[in-house]
Amino acid sequence: MTQKSSFNGSDCPVARGVGILGDKWVLMIIRDMFDQPQRFSVLQKNLGVAKNILSTRLSFLEGEGIVATSPATQSGTWRQYQLTEKGLALFPLLISLRQWGERYLFTPGEQRSLLVDGDGVPLAKMAVRDALGNTVAPQECRRTITSG
Amino acid sequence: MTQKSSFNGSDCPVARGVGILGDKWVLMIIRDMFDQPQRFSVLQKNLGVAKNILSTRLSFLEGEGIVATSPATQSGTWRQYQLTEKGLALFPLLISLRQWGERYLFTPGEQRSLLVDGDGVPLAKMAVRDALGNTVAPQECRRTITSG
Repeated sequence: MTQKSSFNGSDCPVARGVGILGDKWVLMIIRDMFDQPQRFSVLQKNLGVAKNILSTRLSFLEGEGIVATSPATQSGTWRQYQLTEKGLALFPLLISLRQWGERYLFTPGEQRSLLVDGDGVPLAKMAVRDALGNTVAPQECRRTITSG
Repeated sequence: MTQKSSFNGSDCPVARGVGILGDKWVLMIIRDMFDQPQRFSVLQKNLGVAKNILSTRLSFLEGEGIVATSPATQSGTWRQYQLTEKGLALFPLLISLRQWGERYLFTPGEQRSLLVDGDGVPLAKMAVRDALGNTVAPQECRRTITSG
């Protein structure tokens, strides 16, 4: 996060995204919030992260409009953190990361968590597709410039 | 990368993936290699990164089996770095990151790079789908445990 300024002026959307998301705790916080809104103390315990690190990351994510806070109880004593629309839009990225991890970071037979749909069926494999729905390989793509 | 040990023992594929990819330079190096194999000096210049940082990250990525080296010329004086199959499998993640950046990190009319297919047509939007091809929202998913 300290080097964000060298990324957020880039004309490359990947570089700008990396400037925000290229941090372990940022990604882990976002992962936990996909389950449900989270209280600070619960996040801190689940992630095993120092309070000052968590606090810095949450402020950063709030400033970027990825996370918002709301009262956790009617009395309003506790606040909870949840993903905004901009945060929820990271779902394809999180699932791409999950599926890559499933494929390459576990040994055969090793126990791991699995994300399934409402019927208990594993999700489809994430794929890059053209406008017609055909899968596209990296070497079939090229970059242009737009101002759209 | 220093905290990898706290991530790679997790039963969550996202956490293990974050342990490897939750780093700005790691992600930027991978981005550049999707274009073509890269020589150290070219990577260093394009990314504007210190040599020792780049060297550490490349060794790390080689150790993880995400990057491999080969001779850049017939004489074999220079070596180049390229993505392995495991590295190329990050394509859906990179495109998800790119599309999120396109959508949320640019102001209307601001110039940015655009990835198109061989016919010059923008790629389809990345989406999380169930086995039948229907899009799935985060709250429609749940986690189970598998050892498959």
